[in-house]
Amino acid sequence: MERASALHARAVVFDGLSTCNWSRTIFEEMKAGGVTAVNAASVLWEDLRGGLDNISDWRRMLAENADLLRPVKTVADIHAAKREGRTGISIGWQNTSPIEDRLQDIGIFKDLGVGIMQLTYNTQNYSGAGYLELTDSGLTGFGREVVHEMNRVGVLCDLSHVGEKTSFDAIAWSRQPCAISHVLPRALHDVPRNKTDALLKACAEADGIIGISLFAPGLRRGNDATVEDYIDAMEHVLALVGEDHVGLGADFSLDHPRPGPYQNYASRDKGTARNLTEFATAKISKPRGIQRIHEMPHITAAMVKRGWSEDLILKLLGRNWLKLLERVWGG
Amino acid sequence: MERASALHARAVVFDGLSTCNWSRTIFEEMKAGGVTAVNAASVLWEDLRGGLDNISDWRRMLAENADLLRPVKTVADIHAAKREGRTGISIGWQNTSPIEDRLQDIGIFKDLGVGIMQLTYNTQNYSGAGYLELTDSGLTGFGREVVHEMNRVGVLCDLSHVGEKTSFDAIAWSRQPCAISHVLPRALHDVPRNKTDALLKACAEADGIIGISLFAPGLRRGNDATVEDYIDAMEHVLALVGEDHVGLGADFSLDHPRPGPYQNYASRDKGTARNLTEFATAKISKPRGIQRIHEMPHITAAMVKRGWSEDLILKLLGRNWLKLLERVWGG
Repeated sequence: MERASALHARAVVFDGLSTCNWSRTIFEEMKAGGVTAVNAASVLWEDLRGGLDNISDWRRMLAENADLLRPVKTVADIHAAKREGRTGISIGWQNTSPIEDRLQDIGIFKDLGVGIMQLTYNTQNYSGAGYLELTDSGLTGFGREVVHEMNRVGVLCDLSHVGEKTSFDAIAWSRQPCAISHVLPRALHDVPRNKTDALLKACAEADGIIGISLFAPGLRRGNDATVEDYIDAMEHVLALVGEDHVGLGADFSLDHPRPGPYQNYASRDKGTARNLTEFATAKISKPRGIQRIHEMPHITAAMVKRGWSEDLILKLLGRNWLKLLERVWGG
Repeated sequence: MERASALHARAVVFDGLSTCNWSRTIFEEMKAGGVTAVNAASVLWEDLRGGLDNISDWRRMLAENADLLRPVKTVADIHAAKREGRTGISIGWQNTSPIEDRLQDIGIFKDLGVGIMQLTYNTQNYSGAGYLELTDSGLTGFGREVVHEMNRVGVLCDLSHVGEKTSFDAIAWSRQPCAISHVLPRALHDVPRNKTDALLKACAEADGIIGISLFAPGLRRGNDATVEDYIDAMEHVLALVGEDHVGLGADFSLDHPRPGPYQNYASRDKGTARNLTEFATAKISKPRGIQRIHEMPHITAAMVKRGWSEDLILKLLGRNWLKLLERVWGG
């Protein structure tokens, strides 16, 4: 265990998605959990105004917590975060809704710090379908332009909540690798939010990454799951796509009052229309042993316990993410 | 004249405001006219969406005309423009309307390249009154915060179309010098758009700058004015505020069809309400000898003809502007 702690402390740890109720408590936990940088992705259904407000919120939080946080726009910024003992914040969106009908705003938001955009949230938008849409007709004509504009300006295209057909289309259409930033394999637990082996393979074969999620309802044992179940899921994906295309995508959404407005907003179509999931009211936790961010080292300990090599563990904790981000974001 | 041409070619020429119907023709004229950098200020009544679209337009035009233009965010960028033989574009607004009710967006737009914001256009907004408002009640409470946020993030506060009381209030309240970017003295021609000597002095005494405008209706002889009348106006302001607080603010608005939608938009309150001026339909030109941007060297020639020193001429053409921008924008 001492070896695991040392390894975790040394590693560059990149968390592919977190959507907490951000506060100094969370930022301190990220430091305690050894999180070097995170895709902080709170935007779900927001329009332009909401997307800009999210940028403003981060500008304020970064200024007020500069001892714990630093902005991340490049992989060099992530390495700087590691050196400085701060957590790097890469702003992410779980929807392209804030660009509304303006392709050209993708580049503007990239300049403002949005490095990762999920193409769609749970339902249809201008670009394609989410995984809970009635019918997934695939990547739209506008969506094709959105993906190429992301490629051009250096925004990573995330497909986690995206519908299956739209995802396959986006992977095929994109000139850069995509990510499925926070996901679990449907082969181990057949729920709609989990992804098929075929899709996970297609993403990885296009040099993309699969971030393995701690979302307990996506694990076989649900809220009874432990960190071992999480590692099982990771092992399944590793066997499927190889050791260069898997990373973390913890999907922490801590400290939102439950039930409360955030879950309600997340769970309804466009934030206010029909309810789409039971997540607003169901008990949802993280696997035992890794309920909060400061317990992230328990993941590394479980990896060490399985006898995985240091090299593999460092790839899974962050190196694979950084390699992909370097390619998509540019030098 | 040869001496004047050489001096103009050597000078860093900063134009305090231009609002042309931007095109490659205009960009080529700016190069021919020896314009090193310009406050390109097309935004008049736009909301957030319109402000962002203006940023997008400039991103596209800067990319498409990179042989003629470069973006300017710092004074070092202006010097680089001079070295490169390109014209530097500092994006400006003639209204703070695009921030709508969000103080925090001033910093976001600053990062996107907006270096100069006029506090109000012709009428009332959240911050104060324009010079054509029924009653000018001065800088509002929100306006106080707007001015301090501009100071904090390094946006120059421009008072050209601003009401007299609001202008005095803003100068007194601001922690940084302000500009009156394009204006003529009311002492020489008593029209509402011109400014009183008292206001010009107050701006200069707070270390601000007065950009002298080529707007013929503001000159005594109106459309019969020549470049000599322009120099007379400059001479009046120089006598009033001294040689360190005067610059160019040409106010070219070339190539908009006249009459046409742009003048109509400019002339109506909020762009679509009651008509405020006769400028949408009146014949408006620039003084003879300086009708278009490529004739800018004629200004320098007229200064030389008056026997002004090279040092004074270089200050008036650009040095005074750069000194102010360095202070307000920071290193």
